[in-house]
Amino acid sequence: MDYDDSNIFAKILRGEIPSHRVYEDSDVVAFMDVMPQANGHVLVVPKAPSRNILDADPATLTKTIAIVRKLAVATKKAFDADGVTIMQFNEAPAGQSVFHLHFHVIPRVDGVPLRHHAGEMEKSEILSANAQKIKAALSQ
Amino acid sequence: MDYDDSNIFAKILRGEIPSHRVYEDSDVVAFMDVMPQANGHVLVVPKAPSRNILDADPATLTKTIAIVRKLAVATKKAFDADGVTIMQFNEAPAGQSVFHLHFHVIPRVDGVPLRHHAGEMEKSEILSANAQKIKAALSQ
Repeated sequence: MDYDDSNIFAKILRGEIPSHRVYEDSDVVAFMDVMPQANGHVLVVPKAPSRNILDADPATLTKTIAIVRKLAVATKKAFDADGVTIMQFNEAPAGQSVFHLHFHVIPRVDGVPLRHHAGEMEKSEILSANAQKIKAALSQ
Repeated sequence: MDYDDSNIFAKILRGEIPSHRVYEDSDVVAFMDVMPQANGHVLVVPKAPSRNILDADPATLTKTIAIVRKLAVATKKAFDADGVTIMQFNEAPAGQSVFHLHFHVIPRVDGVPLRHHAGEMEKSEILSANAQKIKAALSQ
């Protein structure tokens, strides 16, 4: 299927919708998931348009996975987590709900199960505080 | 934590344990998960040793994610799937059970939930038949 630039991440990338950004370079942005499955859940999103990994350019994936790694290390540190779960969904039957390629990076604490995908909206002040923690860990 | 080369994927890479391989190049191998969460569940594994994404070399990730994409496209085609779920676990509290970096590539059929991670062992003849389907899709 074709890429449709009216999706919510395209709007965030264009600055039409606010987000709690924790990282940005010329190719990739990372921001807080507003319905986090765990404290510190971030999304890593390439700026180049693709629907998901199936139609993604390998050069885009190279840039994106390097930032996924960076955010995995930073969120683990920022939340004193015990591990990091990375998920990437392609098409709705696989769990994709926004049709612009993105990776979920979710710091995990031992014994704490993941909350439901696209569950409850987190308070903006908590997302903002968590974003600050991640930015501090990234700058260390 | 340090990499320990007695893990089962290191043994598979060294040829000490058999696997149903669907892809191999100088840097990356892909083989069937013996406890698949869905029909066609494959693992994409770099040959370079790292425990998980947290200690992985960016060059290793670049090579690996390109093959993850290739297998996502091929498994979707091979099983006439509706989507593909990609998961990558780092440390036991995040779901990692073998401590050599790997990506799960799982073709998804609409309405069919994932089976349990590290659940039931699949019959070897089914894994072998599924590997053949994926190899055929890769060669198209």
